[in-house]
Amino acid sequence: MRFATLDIGGRATVAAINNDGTEYCPLSDLVPGFAGDMAQFIAATPSVKDLSAKNPAWKKLAGERLLAPIPVPRRNIFCVGKNYHEHAREFSQSGFDTSAAKGEIAPEAPVVFTKAPSTVIGPNETVLAFSEMTQQLDYEAELAVIIGKGGRGISKADAMSHIWGYTIVNDVTARDLQQKHRQWFLGKSMDTFCPMGPWIVTADEVDAANLDVRCWINDELRQDANTSDLIFDIPTIISTISAGMTLQPGDVIATGTPAGVGIGFKPPKFLKSGDVMKIEIGNLGTLVNRVA
Amino acid sequence: MRFATLDIGGRATVAAINNDGTEYCPLSDLVPGFAGDMAQFIAATPSVKDLSAKNPAWKKLAGERLLAPIPVPRRNIFCVGKNYHEHAREFSQSGFDTSAAKGEIAPEAPVVFTKAPSTVIGPNETVLAFSEMTQQLDYEAELAVIIGKGGRGISKADAMSHIWGYTIVNDVTARDLQQKHRQWFLGKSMDTFCPMGPWIVTADEVDAANLDVRCWINDELRQDANTSDLIFDIPTIISTISAGMTLQPGDVIATGTPAGVGIGFKPPKFLKSGDVMKIEIGNLGTLVNRVA
Repeated sequence: MRFATLDIGGRATVAAINNDGTEYCPLSDLVPGFAGDMAQFIAATPSVKDLSAKNPAWKKLAGERLLAPIPVPRRNIFCVGKNYHEHAREFSQSGFDTSAAKGEIAPEAPVVFTKAPSTVIGPNETVLAFSEMTQQLDYEAELAVIIGKGGRGISKADAMSHIWGYTIVNDVTARDLQQKHRQWFLGKSMDTFCPMGPWIVTADEVDAANLDVRCWINDELRQDANTSDLIFDIPTIISTISAGMTLQPGDVIATGTPAGVGIGFKPPKFLKSGDVMKIEIGNLGTLVNRVA
Repeated sequence: MRFATLDIGGRATVAAINNDGTEYCPLSDLVPGFAGDMAQFIAATPSVKDLSAKNPAWKKLAGERLLAPIPVPRRNIFCVGKNYHEHAREFSQSGFDTSAAKGEIAPEAPVVFTKAPSTVIGPNETVLAFSEMTQQLDYEAELAVIIGKGGRGISKADAMSHIWGYTIVNDVTARDLQQKHRQWFLGKSMDTFCPMGPWIVTADEVDAANLDVRCWINDELRQDANTSDLIFDIPTIISTISAGMTLQPGDVIATGTPAGVGIGFKPPKFLKSGDVMKIEIGNLGTLVNRVA
């Protein structure tokens, strides 16, 4: 199933979305009395199988705007850096990597940083350019994992059973600030720097180890890879992060971006005002955002 | 004034604390009808001056346990790395710094990373040793700023007016994991790795630019500095973080640790099971935690 957060009459409302994305059903129709947000739904509903047995009344999606499926995550978004071989190479060669050991290309262990929850915006919302602060704005198409069942010390063997679903994020980055501040957090945490959506597809419908990841800038295909090329696969990421830290329902983990970001080109192709970023990942849908 | 979060009969309760830390007054006595947590109190109460005019009934602190003043921050704690000259030198020389440019000692701009909210524990709570994962557990005594009025693009001149108060944090760090994962987040975000407290002292009572910061391990004085030695002062930190990111009431910013952490010694003095860490900062009180 697919679940989105819709703006219905100014109120953020969790809803199921039908397969072609044209109809919705408010969650309160599927779960009588439910009035919470997506994170509360996830925490309360480890498996959505029971829901799909019911027969909800679907409504046509008309003016209801899609928000980010989790508009305000409960804590920062976890992000894995340099997690595709080709991208690790382009990033190392770009001169922007402030945290590799000398000569290192692929990292020996997952590189994990965070983005503030205040970075999250929904489909078709505008990414601020902050042109007074950065001249090197870049995009990063990424598969994001949504944690269902929390836990610490999750083994690789158990990891997939802790995933509730998947969505798309765009890990927008100010490369000059990423470099200037050494740790990557600030250059990746400016307001609007995490477009997310269009919805969450539940784990039972996704083959996460084999999803095509594509990103277009103004209709030019820039990123074109498959999640099978991840350096650290999803079970490894979950087991690494949860080794010492308790994961919680609704946690968002962005799994890294493939080659083809702006700094991978010579000369670099940084984003400019008006650029349209379009990301498509497997059966997760399409996420489109414009740079202000 | 001082505000703490107390465990009263199993319920986290915000309370004012008297000057010698022996008596408390539940916030609901000061603000009739208030039943929120510390972050909600901060958001609703930009200035505490009006409160102090009232005449609350103080109760003796007996069995009521002090929790962290903000037990579950709304998003990750902001942390500034390498922000005292002497410490920047000891960290560079230790070989554990994975993010400096070659030959760089003091950073050219604030280095900002985060700790997950799930790291927070209160006074006298136990820090887990995770001895199966790290052999290089370290302490970092830090002055923490609590944001009152939020905002983006806060100028240095306005920065101090956005501070609601101050508390102490211990930025506990697994040095081997900090190094192994390149970005510092994972080595600093294991459960229990952010002791915080004992309470928040409101900004009107703190001269943050001139506070002695001291840390003892088992009664051996290890860190002994003054916040006047910060490389990037508090107005610079707030203006840097808020330049592109909207700060929110209740945000916690740890301002960095002075020289004298475990890796600063030759050979390094890492924490071991049973060690008692005691931090004292100016008039903010004392924060004591033991390693499990």
